[in-house]
Amino acid sequence: MGKELSTREENYSEWYNELVVKADLAEHSAVKGCMVIKPYGYAIWEKMQQALDKMFKDTGHVNAYFPLFIPKSFFSKEASHVAGFAKECAVVTHYRLKTAEDGSIVVDETAKLDEELIVRPTSETIIWNTYKGWIQSYRDLPILVNQWANVVRWEMRTRLFLRTTEFLWQEGHTAHATADEAIAETEQMLNVYADFAEQWMAVPVIKGIKTANERFAGAIETYCIESLMQDGKALQAGTSHFLGQNFAKAFDVKFANKEGKQDFVWATSWGVSTRLMGALVMSHSDDKGLVLPPKLAPFQVVIVPIYKGDEQLAQINEVANKMKKAMEAKGISVKYDNRDNQRPGWKFAEYELKGVPVRIAIGGRDLENGTVEVARRDTLEKETLLQADIENKIEHLLQQIQDNLFQKALAMREAKTYHADSYEEFKKILDETPGFVMAHWDGTSETEQKIKEETKATIRCIPLNNKKEEGKCIYSGKPSNQRVVFAKAY
Amino acid sequence: MGKELSTREENYSEWYNELVVKADLAEHSAVKGCMVIKPYGYAIWEKMQQALDKMFKDTGHVNAYFPLFIPKSFFSKEASHVAGFAKECAVVTHYRLKTAEDGSIVVDETAKLDEELIVRPTSETIIWNTYKGWIQSYRDLPILVNQWANVVRWEMRTRLFLRTTEFLWQEGHTAHATADEAIAETEQMLNVYADFAEQWMAVPVIKGIKTANERFAGAIETYCIESLMQDGKALQAGTSHFLGQNFAKAFDVKFANKEGKQDFVWATSWGVSTRLMGALVMSHSDDKGLVLPPKLAPFQVVIVPIYKGDEQLAQINEVANKMKKAMEAKGISVKYDNRDNQRPGWKFAEYELKGVPVRIAIGGRDLENGTVEVARRDTLEKETLLQADIENKIEHLLQQIQDNLFQKALAMREAKTYHADSYEEFKKILDETPGFVMAHWDGTSETEQKIKEETKATIRCIPLNNKKEEGKCIYSGKPSNQRVVFAKAY
Repeated sequence: MGKELSTREENYSEWYNELVVKADLAEHSAVKGCMVIKPYGYAIWEKMQQALDKMFKDTGHVNAYFPLFIPKSFFSKEASHVAGFAKECAVVTHYRLKTAEDGSIVVDETAKLDEELIVRPTSETIIWNTYKGWIQSYRDLPILVNQWANVVRWEMRTRLFLRTTEFLWQEGHTAHATADEAIAETEQMLNVYADFAEQWMAVPVIKGIKTANERFAGAIETYCIESLMQDGKALQAGTSHFLGQNFAKAFDVKFANKEGKQDFVWATSWGVSTRLMGALVMSHSDDKGLVLPPKLAPFQVVIVPIYKGDEQLAQINEVANKMKKAMEAKGISVKYDNRDNQRPGWKFAEYELKGVPVRIAIGGRDLENGTVEVARRDTLEKETLLQADIENKIEHLLQQIQDNLFQKALAMREAKTYHADSYEEFKKILDETPGFVMAHWDGTSETEQKIKEETKATIRCIPLNNKKEEGKCIYSGKPSNQRVVFAKAY
Repeated sequence: MGKELSTREENYSEWYNELVVKADLAEHSAVKGCMVIKPYGYAIWEKMQQALDKMFKDTGHVNAYFPLFIPKSFFSKEASHVAGFAKECAVVTHYRLKTAEDGSIVVDETAKLDEELIVRPTSETIIWNTYKGWIQSYRDLPILVNQWANVVRWEMRTRLFLRTTEFLWQEGHTAHATADEAIAETEQMLNVYADFAEQWMAVPVIKGIKTANERFAGAIETYCIESLMQDGKALQAGTSHFLGQNFAKAFDVKFANKEGKQDFVWATSWGVSTRLMGALVMSHSDDKGLVLPPKLAPFQVVIVPIYKGDEQLAQINEVANKMKKAMEAKGISVKYDNRDNQRPGWKFAEYELKGVPVRIAIGGRDLENGTVEVARRDTLEKETLLQADIENKIEHLLQQIQDNLFQKALAMREAKTYHADSYEEFKKILDETPGFVMAHWDGTSETEQKIKEETKATIRCIPLNNKKEEGKCIYSGKPSNQRVVFAKAY
């Protein structure tokens, strides 16, 4: 079993690709661009889903389900939306296969659809077409609906979790009587995402708004959370869109307000996806493998016995099972691995690779002394603790690990956040010490586009509540009143 | 708001179609054959998912996710599988749209796939192609994986939940070292489904095996649970398949057994779908609307205030909120509907339509007397109870309702289960008093097929542990040693 990973230093990109596969998170499938999410990876995604779903419900949202397929004509109804999505769609044209004369399976040309169906890349169009039937009056508003679903965006160059043709996500689609209410919803969901990223994933994020260039196709304003990976590249972790009345107009969704006047409905949409799995891996993991925050680890503690002979194993089993039970009573998830077909050293490496937050080893001497050896995955530190009251000690340790991972990631981000006051300085930073670069920009799409072409860096966002500061655009020299966040991005 | 339903007596089929829409469970979408599952319906499905998911995990299974798309060639690899599924597939042939010269959106013919992709109708092929990479030795077995997903089977005549082009389901796919172990798994999951149907849905089921005609395409043996609806038609509620080595052979999945010999892996698959929603509706509901078993109701209790003036409402609010809190502390889900824009009578009808198991009304006299009026949805009975200790009384009542629904459905099924000893009698029963018909059959596909053509009745299953009894086939007169279950089916 070859467990040697590339190191982050050698090749960060390779390290990531290998780690995702070796730690059993996901693998490439036989279908180009589509991945298989393996049980260990899916267990992390399930924990993400549960936490997010609860946050959505606590803020008044309900789940529903809309069709996978969208009639082609729906995409033409919102002009900027079709421009943004039409280039990357899976198109269903037929609904039957048949056996050819030579025995092979072929498409039945007589079963051609009158109108092609698009596999949803996002669901605004089909959902707003549905909302038309749900909304007559202000009494029907707001509609606060979320959907957990798979979506497809055809990608030529894919990477596991970060960019795949099919991915899993949630998409919230809400309808409101006023612009203010819709904007408040957009901001509320941005905050939900930021809280989730920081409190569950231990990934610090900058909240901001996108420039026109980077805005969602069909949105008035796109809010986002941006995170920074260990290699200094940015990763957009979630977006929340204020859609104005664009989709209501495209699908003719009006309501009677309290005064009895007809008006178009105001909309938001917001989503996070299995891309978060990539952000999680790249934020915390090291050359030995995954490092998982305890709140999202499929199991938080692994116990490994180190024994000679069946009699000693029996004694250790007794101690281990008692500890396991005590920890589980406190809501800690524990795996006891007393398989006899692998040596302790192999198991240690395996659980380091899998990022299990805490490892407890129990050996012969521990039996005599009433102790255990406790190793934490984040710092790789070990200590010997008394068995008594272990459940409370581990509970405390898990909280420490969760906090430490966030603080470490925050310190990393701060160390990799730079100010550039000239274009030369800007390019030097991007080349030599990549990270977030705070720089003045003249506010034009042209400048942003030129910088992107010349350096591959994009404006990740204009931070919310940004500090105002007079300055000159690093590219054009024109006046600017705030710095924005530039970076090369995933 | 037109709440009048067709009655079951008038037109059972119309009654069902109207009820699903009026009770806000689901509706037809703009995409032919695809449905929108509305929030109230989806909340029931979520409860089903949670209960099933726990049962799967308690029996050692883990979740994973496999691609939506399956290469066309995969379907050819298992001969009977392709015959069963090829006729009803959505086929993706292109991966891009473009804007035509006239401004319309058209398929980009230059973006044609070399090999067409099929939107999964079921995932045996893509999963067994993946398992090939996961299995080398007996140590890698068993693999006990489940997937929650959407699937597509092209349907010409669709009905909400019962038969839709896209539906939601779970599909378990397991791999084993021996046939015995795979058969034990198949039977275990059948039992899980039966327990779920009876204990959660309150729907009694017959466990059995399918005849060759009705077997899953690619299975050696298909086990099923069969339920009977109020109109005397059968509904297959879940299936569990013993696949033998068919898919392992098709995808060349071998393992080294303990003796080091290579053998093909043994397989099972098993699934239930949003079709269960249809079974739930048709089993218990009445002419006033849905009747939901408490264990699957989105909320189990609704409290409605009946008041004159704000002062009285304030007093009732206080009592209601206290009761709500006490019930919630016991895990009972409660909605307090004190909206002032609808009258109590409207609310009563609305919550009857929605199938809320228990309704509590509080009026002025109740305030004086320390009482409430409690109405149960299943029997429509009302009683006046003291407010004191209401949470325990309601908890007990919910259990009674859950039990009563099962007993009522069981009594209905028993009343509609007939024995036929001649083909004339058989046809008369089907015409006049449809239900399950227990009859002797000669064991041949030909006879089964002829009976189906002449009467539309099929063999729903051969019950497990069936009583042996000498007799003659009702159709051919040939000898038979057991009765099988015939019915017209959804």
